Amino acid sequence: MTDIYDDAIVIDGLNVSNWDSERALDGVYAGRVTAFNATIAIFEKFHEAMDNIAGWYERLDHWSDTLMPVASVDDIHEAKRTGKSGVVFGWQNASPIENNLDHLETFHKLGVRVIQVTYNERNLLGNGCYERNDDGLSNFGVDAVKEMNRLGILVDLSHVGDRTTLDAAEVSDKPVAATHANARSFVDHPRNKTDDALKLIAEKGGIIGATCWPPFLPNKFESTLRDYGDAIDDMVERVGIDHVGIGTDYTIDRTKEWFDVLLSQQGTKWNPRRLNYPDTVTHPVGIETPDKFPSIADELARRGYTSEDITKVLGGNFMRVFGEVWN
Amino acid sequence: MTDIYDDAIVIDGLNVSNWDSERALDGVYAGRVTAFNATIAIFEKFHEAMDNIAGWYERLDHWSDTLMPVASVDDIHEAKRTGKSGVVFGWQNASPIENNLDHLETFHKLGVRVIQVTYNERNLLGNGCYERNDDGLSNFGVDAVKEMNRLGILVDLSHVGDRTTLDAAEVSDKPVAATHANARSFVDHPRNKTDDALKLIAEKGGIIGATCWPPFLPNKFESTLRDYGDAIDDMVERVGIDHVGIGTDYTIDRTKEWFDVLLSQQGTKWNPRRLNYPDTVTHPVGIETPDKFPSIADELARRGYTSEDITKVLGGNFMRVFGEVWN
Repeated sequence: MTDIYDDAIVIDGLNVSNWDSERALDGVYAGRVTAFNATIAIFEKFHEAMDNIAGWYERLDHWSDTLMPVASVDDIHEAKRTGKSGVVFGWQNASPIENNLDHLETFHKLGVRVIQVTYNERNLLGNGCYERNDDGLSNFGVDAVKEMNRLGILVDLSHVGDRTTLDAAEVSDKPVAATHANARSFVDHPRNKTDDALKLIAEKGGIIGATCWPPFLPNKFESTLRDYGDAIDDMVERVGIDHVGIGTDYTIDRTKEWFDVLLSQQGTKWNPRRLNYPDTVTHPVGIETPDKFPSIADELARRGYTSEDITKVLGGNFMRVFGEVWN
Repeated sequence: MTDIYDDAIVIDGLNVSNWDSERALDGVYAGRVTAFNATIAIFEKFHEAMDNIAGWYERLDHWSDTLMPVASVDDIHEAKRTGKSGVVFGWQNASPIENNLDHLETFHKLGVRVIQVTYNERNLLGNGCYERNDDGLSNFGVDAVKEMNRLGILVDLSHVGDRTTLDAAEVSDKPVAATHANARSFVDHPRNKTDDALKLIAEKGGIIGATCWPPFLPNKFESTLRDYGDAIDDMVERVGIDHVGIGTDYTIDRTKEWFDVLLSQQGTKWNPRRLNYPDTVTHPVGIETPDKFPSIADELARRGYTSEDITKVLGGNFMRVFGEVWN
């Protein structure tokens, strides 16, 4: 098993940890994750997103022994070769472009390679999965998806509403992703994706990062690595081995206060919409932290996956999609 | 007739002229308009809207012989008493609050008293009348309407999509307005309002500013004051005399370039959605410019409206709604 993991390019489709935490960064390196989609914007606007990018380039200087920025498939191969963990700049919301699509190119030049259409609520492009209504992409959203296609930015649909998800996948002429989600038919949760969406993402040559975020697993915060194995199995059965990856949704050293504001646009302190999470949120036993990433390969082997299939799920499929989208 | 006009409080529910034009400001004063909802934001974001307000306070200093700011019904009475034209700071888009509802209070303190839920396209609150889809207010939009109610900001629904219009009117516990629109059953145009919307606005004690913007009249850019009289008649028949006002939508000294970008969020130069307007846009003959405002009273008298009813349409109804909303 160790051989397969050693040889594989390992990609985490989404990690939203507190990047000021050494534990978060050390963990990814200890887990020998070749590259991870590091969330660097959630509800941020233009200037805040620029500050985050500046902060990340400073951080990458400081951690240059273990981390490196990646903006291409070649960069990921280099990360593998040098034994570093590659950081993909990703957004969970298109909010930083504000109402100007020209900003997409600016941010692309700065390294942003994954953008989720919207995060939980409405933005100018579309509707999130916790919105009261969702009838799909706006005019601006259609233009935004086309511009992301042109530039080479992966369209992420994880926190996106059901209709907006289908709209964006239909409009996109490149593969699209749900970097961190399971099937709603597996666990009924608004953040998990409908069968229609999963089918369409696979048809477009895209990928779903099966996730071990506990609320999207059957045993919730009582889950173990076995439950995550079940989620991967389920997704492989639904969309096929070529369209499944890993999207842990790690939230290392994120505070309760941070979770409390995730469902609302900023400034709605007087009427918050809150997630009802335990005081301390932990990932499933056996995969609690990113240093335990190799145990995913063990779990897949235990379930009888071939070396080739394990390699696809660990990162091969994400590499194919990155290659087609980022070119 | 002159007596009625002289005595009346005259309110223009919407004027979107180029405020750097002396002709635009002189015209309103020459027309003895007691107060007008002056559009000071369309697609602007926070900082741009702040700049506009700063510019307006400078402009009001410069024009203090003829103009004064109004932020209350008392201010409008003072404008009438002193013979000045009162400027109501109004937005045709909630875009300047960006994703922070707390900004509403800041802008209210700076004098903003009318905010249209959205302008033509989608924003964080809802969908505009030219959107490809409209399923109503977002979570953020529901909160925004409630906060506008609390602060005392009039909710304008003129350029708002059909479903979002109904949603906002339903959510609002204060009267709402369509400051510049006609009935879609009168002239079939996406910017004119559905019968459902008009009925609900009237039921809520609100107001519709019948408009002489040519594309919303039967004879389009060939219209005259008679056509505008027909539009007022039509609206009075639909919603009753207590719910109709004037909303000219004057665009004095606006350029063709300005009209060309009205349908798109900023930055979509590579894929613009354009209005197909003539090179030179003029209001109907007889009411081309705001100095001809008194001829509206003449037209209503010619049609047999009583003095009381003329006074209501000229500004009395808007005063009632302002009073209930702004308190």
